[in-house]
This record gives sequence, structure tokens and C-alpha cells, in this order.
Amino acid sequence: MSANITGDSTQPTVELFIKIAMSNWEIQNSRLNKLLDKLTDEQLSAQTSPGRNSGTYILGHLTAVNDTMFTLLELGERLYSQLDEAFIKNPDSSGLEKPTLAEIKEYWYTMSTLLKQKMDAMQPHEWFTKHSAVSADEFEKEPHRNKLNILINRTNHQSYHMGQLIYLNNNESD
Amino acid sequence: MSANITGDSTQPTVELFIKIAMSNWEIQNSRLNKLLDKLTDEQLSAQTSPGRNSGTYILGHLTAVNDTMFTLLELGERLYSQLDEAFIKNPDSSGLEKPTLAEIKEYWYTMSTLLKQKMDAMQPHEWFTKHSAVSADEFEKEPHRNKLNILINRTNHQSYHMGQLIYLNNNESD
Repeated sequence: MSANITGDSTQPTVELFIKIAMSNWEIQNSRLNKLLDKLTDEQLSAQTSPGRNSGTYILGHLTAVNDTMFTLLELGERLYSQLDEAFIKNPDSSGLEKPTLAEIKEYWYTMSTLLKQKMDAMQPHEWFTKHSAVSADEFEKEPHRNKLNILINRTNHQSYHMGQLIYLNNNESD
Repeated sequence: MSANITGDSTQPTVELFIKIAMSNWEIQNSRLNKLLDKLTDEQLSAQTSPGRNSGTYILGHLTAVNDTMFTLLELGERLYSQLDEAFIKNPDSSGLEKPTLAEIKEYWYTMSTLLKQKMDAMQPHEWFTKHSAVSADEFEKEPHRNKLNILINRTNHQSYHMGQLIYLNNNESD
């Protein structure tokens, strides 16, 4: 499946690293999409726990945060920067006007689909270049702050909120 | 910081990828340990949301799941396999006898410290060998099912439950 960068078949390959990171990303996305298919709009609009962020807010938050990956990974313009104010910079309780749940869902699917397409089209070596929020000087000192690190970090971020969204599902004991 | 496997300084290195995975693991552990420092035993014993797993249960669950990594990563005998029955195979509501919170905390810290020591002592190439739960035949077909994949997957698992544990902290809006 992967050209070997050393010619030694016992050596790991760059493609293998990317496959590991991408497969973990896809597991998270597939779990979240399955949960979205299962929940009614009423369930998704509820608070994940009394006084805590609603499912709608968390989905808007994940849409906004993952949307910043277009910029961080240098994959072109992001789609929904207008979401940052209500879903990143402020909590659910901000009272700021928010898109409807139907709109947020549409943004989520559009953003996820395009992001996946663009990530799939990246060349292996690009994942090891610096992400756009780190300076060349910082990157020289901390070469692990590359695009692949963003992918792994955002996978963890989504997983964190998935642990909360699952509380909206009354049939799930996790 | 890392010997380059191709001799080409623009090429990513094996060590870099391990550093990315380990730094994300450490971020999760450090966040969880900070939360444990902050919560009272009463807070930690409470349910993370009405009818959901308690903080004590989730800490026992994370201890048991991470403890299986000694086996999966072939780092020697695991420490606390007796936890699996109450904290992996059964939910909080099982009614099974469980260790006290003080004991679970002690197991958590002992297991985490030893696991970190053993992971730090692994040679880079070992991370790319198969984990113990995959057969040689399966690994031939799916070479990404290596030890590094376990680390990334278990980081996501911990992050998922961290999203729930944070609900025990009354001063935290996430």
C-alpha cells in the first residue's frame, strides 16, 4: 500500500503515519454522523447535562473548530468564519443569535465533506510541513508542530465533545 | 532532535511522529491529572450527568483500559486486570463491588507513571510493530494496526471520557 522511504521493508513509512491519523479521524466522524442520524432534533437541541452546552451548540462548535482546519492545513478559504463568535469565542449561554439547527447540520455536513476531500488530496510530505498558526522560527525549534499534529489534536477535540453528545442519547449507557 | 531516516533534512522522521503521538497523550494525561487535583472526593464520586457514570467509575474505567496497554504494547504484565469486570465489562450500575476512590486514584497514578516510563523506553521502530491483539496475518493486510495506532486510539478514548469528567467541575463551562 505504501512506497517505502528507506527501501527497507521493516521500516515504517510516511504513508502509514498518515493512514493511522486519518483512520482515527474517520472513526470519530463516522461515530458522530451515526449519532446525528439517530437523534431527533428535539434530543439534539437539549442540554448535554443540566446547565451545560446543548447538542446544537456543540455541533456548531465542532463545525466552527473543524472549519478552521482549512486555514491551518492551508487547504484554501474556510467556509463559515461567521460561526466563531457564537460557537468558539462565546458559550451557549451568550444570548448571541445563532443559526437554526437545520442550518448548523447543513454546515457540518458541507464542511466535513469538503475537508475530507481536501485532506485526501494532500501529498504525504505536506502533512509534515508547519501549520499556518506556527511561525517559521517556532517550527524550527518545535518541528512536531506540523499539519499532522493538527489532525491528531482536532481528532482528540472532537472525541472530547463526542463524550458529551452521547449523553443526548437516552439508550446509550456510555 | 531526531536522526533522519532518509538523510534528507526535508523528510519527516519516525521520531517526529512518535513525538506528536506522545505529546498528545501527555496533554490528555496532564489535563486529567489537573482535574483530579482540583476536584474534591465528593465531586469525583458524583454522577457526571444524571443517571450517567460517576467520576469514580470513569477513573476506574480509564485505569483499567490504559492498564491493558502494557499487554497491547508488549511492555510486560499489566497491573490491575481485576478491574476489568467492574470497570470495562460492566457499567457503573452493575452493583459489583468496587475498590474505594482512594484505591482507584492510587491505581491510576501507579499505572500512569509506570506506563509512561515504559513507553519512553521504547525504541522508535517498536512503535511500528504489530500490537498484541492483531494476528500476523491481519497485520500483513492492515499494517497501520501497530502500537502507535493503539496510543493514538487510547488518547482519543481518554479525551472522550475527559469531556464527561469535566462536568464534575462546577466552575468549568466546557
